[in-house]
Amino acid sequence: MTGIKVAINGFGTIGKRVADAVDAQQDMEIVGVTKTGPSFGCDLAVRKGFPLYCTFNDEASIARFAEQGYDCAGGLSDLLAIADVVIDCSPGKMGDENLAKYKAADIKYIFQGGEKHALTGLSYSSSANHEQNLNAAGTRVVSCNTTGLSRTLVPLYEHCGSLSVECTMIRRAADPGDSKKGPINAIKPVLKVPSHHGPDVMTVKPEININSLAVAVPTTLMHLHSIIADLPSGHGLTTEGVLDMWRNTPRVIVMHGADNRITTTAEVMELARDIGRKWGDLHEIFVWEDGVSLQGDRLYYFQAIHQESDVIPENIDAIRALMGIEADWRASVAKTDAAIAAYYNL
Amino acid sequence: MTGIKVAINGFGTIGKRVADAVDAQQDMEIVGVTKTGPSFGCDLAVRKGFPLYCTFNDEASIARFAEQGYDCAGGLSDLLAIADVVIDCSPGKMGDENLAKYKAADIKYIFQGGEKHALTGLSYSSSANHEQNLNAAGTRVVSCNTTGLSRTLVPLYEHCGSLSVECTMIRRAADPGDSKKGPINAIKPVLKVPSHHGPDVMTVKPEININSLAVAVPTTLMHLHSIIADLPSGHGLTTEGVLDMWRNTPRVIVMHGADNRITTTAEVMELARDIGRKWGDLHEIFVWEDGVSLQGDRLYYFQAIHQESDVIPENIDAIRALMGIEADWRASVAKTDAAIAAYYNL
Amino acid sequence: MTGIKVAINGFGTIGKRVADAVDAQQDMEIVGVTKTGPSFGCDLAVRKGFPLYCTFNDEASIARFAEQGYDCAGGLSDLLAIADVVIDCSPGKMGDENLAKYKAADIKYIFQGGEKHALTGLSYSSSANHEQNLNAAGTRVVSCNTTGLSRTLVPLYEHCGSLSVECTMIRRAADPGDSKKGPINAIKPVLKVPSHHGPDVMTVKPEININSLAVAVPTTLMHLHSIIADLPSGHGLTTEGVLDMWRNTPRVIVMHGADNRITTTAEVMELARDIGRKWGDLHEIFVWEDGVSLQGDRLYYFQAIHQESDVIPENIDAIRALMGIEADWRASVAKTDAAIAAYYNL
Amino acid sequence: MTGIKVAINGFGTIGKRVADAVDAQQDMEIVGVTKTGPSFGCDLAVRKGFPLYCTFNDEASIARFAEQGYDCAGGLSDLLAIADVVIDCSPGKMGDENLAKYKAADIKYIFQGGEKHALTGLSYSSSANHEQNLNAAGTRVVSCNTTGLSRTLVPLYEHCGSLSVECTMIRRAADPGDSKKGPINAIKPVLKVPSHHGPDVMTVKPEININSLAVAVPTTLMHLHSIIADLPSGHGLTTEGVLDMWRNTPRVIVMHGADNRITTTAEVMELARDIGRKWGDLHEIFVWEDGVSLQGDRLYYFQAIHQESDVIPENIDAIRALMGIEADWRASVAKTDAAIAAYYNL
Repeated sequence: MTGIKVAINGFGTIGKRVADAVDAQQDMEIVGVTKTGPSFGCDLAVRKGFPLYCTFNDEASIARFAEQGYDCAGGLSDLLAIADVVIDCSPGKMGDENLAKYKAADIKYIFQGGEKHALTGLSYSSSANHEQNLNAAGTRVVSCNTTGLSRTLVPLYEHCGSLSVECTMIRRAADPGDSKKGPINAIKPVLKVPSHHGPDVMTVKPEININSLAVAVPTTLMHLHSIIADLPSGHGLTTEGVLDMWRNTPRVIVMHGADNRITTTAEVMELARDIGRKWGDLHEIFVWEDGVSLQGDRLYYFQAIHQESDVIPENIDAIRALMGIEADWRASVAKTDAAIAAYYNL
Repeated sequence: MTGIKVAINGFGTIGKRVADAVDAQQDMEIVGVTKTGPSFGCDLAVRKGFPLYCTFNDEASIARFAEQGYDCAGGLSDLLAIADVVIDCSPGKMGDENLAKYKAADIKYIFQGGEKHALTGLSYSSSANHEQNLNAAGTRVVSCNTTGLSRTLVPLYEHCGSLSVECTMIRRAADPGDSKKGPINAIKPVLKVPSHHGPDVMTVKPEININSLAVAVPTTLMHLHSIIADLPSGHGLTTEGVLDMWRNTPRVIVMHGADNRITTTAEVMELARDIGRKWGDLHEIFVWEDGVSLQGDRLYYFQAIHQESDVIPENIDAIRALMGIEADWRASVAKTDAAIAAYYNL
Repeated sequence: MTGIKVAINGFGTIGKRVADAVDAQQDMEIVGVTKTGPSFGCDLAVRKGFPLYCTFNDEASIARFAEQGYDCAGGLSDLLAIADVVIDCSPGKMGDENLAKYKAADIKYIFQGGEKHALTGLSYSSSANHEQNLNAAGTRVVSCNTTGLSRTLVPLYEHCGSLSVECTMIRRAADPGDSKKGPINAIKPVLKVPSHHGPDVMTVKPEININSLAVAVPTTLMHLHSIIADLPSGHGLTTEGVLDMWRNTPRVIVMHGADNRITTTAEVMELARDIGRKWGDLHEIFVWEDGVSLQGDRLYYFQAIHQESDVIPENIDAIRALMGIEADWRASVAKTDAAIAAYYNL
Repeated sequence: MTGIKVAINGFGTIGKRVADAVDAQQDMEIVGVTKTGPSFGCDLAVRKGFPLYCTFNDEASIARFAEQGYDCAGGLSDLLAIADVVIDCSPGKMGDENLAKYKAADIKYIFQGGEKHALTGLSYSSSANHEQNLNAAGTRVVSCNTTGLSRTLVPLYEHCGSLSVECTMIRRAADPGDSKKGPINAIKPVLKVPSHHGPDVMTVKPEININSLAVAVPTTLMHLHSIIADLPSGHGLTTEGVLDMWRNTPRVIVMHGADNRITTTAEVMELARDIGRKWGDLHEIFVWEDGVSLQGDRLYYFQAIHQESDVIPENIDAIRALMGIEADWRASVAKTDAAIAAYYNL
């Protein structure tokens, strides 16, 4: 079967992961990925058999690939011409420029959470607003943090009918492969109060009332959210009831920290490595069972977010939404996750 | 003048600092400090001229000091016999045992925040309940975190008449001189939800309604608090009004992070080193001016806590409270801080 | 085909990796792995289809597995009874006790580098002394550091005929999944001078004269070796000649750091994640091309060691040596590595 | 008495420390310090009573200080006009430009180790070449690393008559007050092999033959040197003899790590904080007694370097050398150190 033709514009941290996830699916395929020039990262595309395109369209830029021994199939325009949808995984600040190119090519487009909601006027999170994105021209998959918040807050909201949330985000200061950024020994508060992170949830589920504060800390593995959610009276939930709800929520893992000796993000990522997805990725949000407590109408909990990968399966679901081939978000999620598990022999 | 005779039981991280702070005052003096045995830490006492006692009373333990060339003036009982008040700075889990000794010696006693409130039935924080501690037999100076919360919350409470607070504590995982503890690269949530830290404020100011969550992160310098305080309606405050209140609060520093390039706890501690107290200590709580925001009745702010030293001046004030020599907390605080500044030529 | 029957005693950091590597080969198979009791780690064995045995032989210990829903095929003795060779991956200090059990079961045994050479009287490193291990009763695969040193030093020695080496080992203080150990912000010299690490090379290649110094630093990813090797006069090598030698050495990667922006161990491990072995493992030793310099007869170079995994393929080769089924170390290495690559679809 | 008039050009990490050290001496005084503009750092100068000058000479730059409430005594030229010697503590890359200004003002000048030897053609380390610097027009105090190497290697050289040294420098990646630089979790080899650090020793003691390799690690406290020194045969030394030599060397501390529980740079810096110099500085080089071992003619040892402060007393000695007021380096060192100890009540 010939599936949806997907282009990846930017084959870096997110791009390489989305490409693999697309490659894993039955109903879509990679028609090409772009790099700005020949570099070590091209080898990964070659090994996977993904056609390599140049981010730029000029002959000189394209010719540089051949000089280093890489086949280059053309420029970005050539790639867009043969694709149904493009996943924009280019570094920040290119949004407006790239959007114009995608519209000119008359294909659907998906941006990442580094871009502002205003760019697309529509955002996406699988459990929050898949239906709203059906057949849209383009969308923005929300950031790793917003995706993580949506995973646990949306089912809570849907049960309760209203929700008021405060979140302190303890963020990893740099990704594992980034040796430039600090701090080495300090805590850095984000001096924009409240921060933009929490309210971004409202781009996919405006009914949830949420604010956040953020700090960066000297670790590379995961973000951690310290969350307080005020439920409306009459919610009928217990701590155990909340846990059960999340146990039945896709892409959420609930585990007891003390019983399993998973007491920090280090052990969570070790669990992820054992699962066996490439790069040791953890697509799920990790909730500590013994870190959840409902006190009256106020729910306290911690969750950990793998900043490099939790949005990867959401991109796949977003493709299906835009292409209008799967109207039920749960069906898309099940399809996406089963295909990825099979791909990696999990 | 002969001042209040102060014994320090345990001359470690806190003990050595309290000893210096006592030494700086006009109305009190160190009559001795204890060590469990001869070690490098004894040199510091010798250099300062503090009489050295043994934590234990048996001859053999006392004799070990002389073997290593240190004068030892006797055992703990000998020290307690000549003191008016003892500051307990011994490591944890000795509270009950030590309390019995202090009562037997019929002297006043001050424990630190590592002990539980139940041990003494009375706790202390200078701005919160100095009056309540006047002439008491003994008390407990609350922990570094609780002291920090009291500094900024008590004046807020006193202005507003009621206060409801949630705090996420991002804790340094180990002290600067501790090379044993991790994590090196992880975030560790405290899986007791809510944590005990916030509610401890209610031992000194029960009218403040407070809960907290805590995480430990790989840094050694300071704790950071991410705080949300709900003010009662009609509070009449603005963000600027709150800042002014804290600018006029003793032992609170309010500075603009962006303007002064003090964007993390690293720069805060560098500021402390410039101030010039021994060990680079920061007795004050540091509040980022640009990290404070009052949104309706909800106040958001960040504060940083020097875990090794913010309780030091509180111990001095607590001595005056127990001895009944200064009924006005503001007067005691002013006296304490001026004497310390003079001692270090600040 | 029925291959060599391999038992894994201890299914932890090393055990789980060796099990996968054995599973990847055509000429051997896993007949069982041991765990001390039911725990999360058992799930990994279940998912892989490895029969689960109990480290202990008593009924009560074995019964605990069933209580938690795990099939347990028996105790260690039952496992040893059906195996040809056992890979000892149990935690330290069990060497003597376990060796007695393996001898009693009359099967071949392979210990890891955490045990002393004296336990087995024979050690193993693929390129150093495969032949010496042919048909032996048992051996010890040397540690990650010693394996790393052997990879680059043995070919150098074989070209030069003699070699005198000093190495400073900058060690990661804890593994990525270990959140207990520090230091968070310090450098820790190993105050045994010279350290035991370098001389351990002489258990597999006694002709290399080597000493070492070691320090631990606050990172989890890799060890790094800073090496000075004195070549005998008349060696005929150049810096480029040394690089070419290593480019042709199995399990050594030579890359230019500046050109590829691989300037720290963070980028090296990112490269490893891109390769795609489970757990993001790097079986190869990484040598920075621009960190190698031959000055007269003295060679300077840096190499990075993935402490969790470089010994994994050596264990496979050691099995073949003990079983006497492949006398040529290069043939075994090629077989091992090709099978692992195929297993992970690299 | 009116002493030598010292100007500090650049009142930052090094400048503020040198200013205090000058202020501590009997035979010299601070006549002014420069800042580029009004900022928090000016407060420190004001508190110390150091006249404040502007780095620039133009009216507008000078006027900015008054606008922020600081007295500014003039521009750099005004300061140079009243000084006998200027200590250049400005950030890098200004060397040539500043040297021209100092020569134009016809005063003596001292640069720091961030500048190249070629700038001044003369470098300085108290124990290495004080005599060579007597009455010179200007010099360069070598870097913290080179100063540290000189402290322990020069006496060794002087005893032995020749010395061949290899050093691996494990460097702190950022200073404690610097929150920008990484890496957070990686080891970074300096891919210039050999590195420039070791050979810089030869600018002050060319007779010592030395090379070095360097790596940066995620810590802020101290550098650590892993050193191998080859002594000439017939040196007559033992490990204990080397230790005795260093015990008698100024500005070297020799302590047993295991006995004193000083096993990492964290505990060394805690020792420094106990000593009580401002900023918790450690002017001495710290050598672990149990990390020194002479094996035949090869000496192995570790030493730790407080990168922020070990050069501070050397700057004072260098002033005396240039001004020709103290020909004996040991006499100058004794004078410098005693004055600093008295200044801080140590």
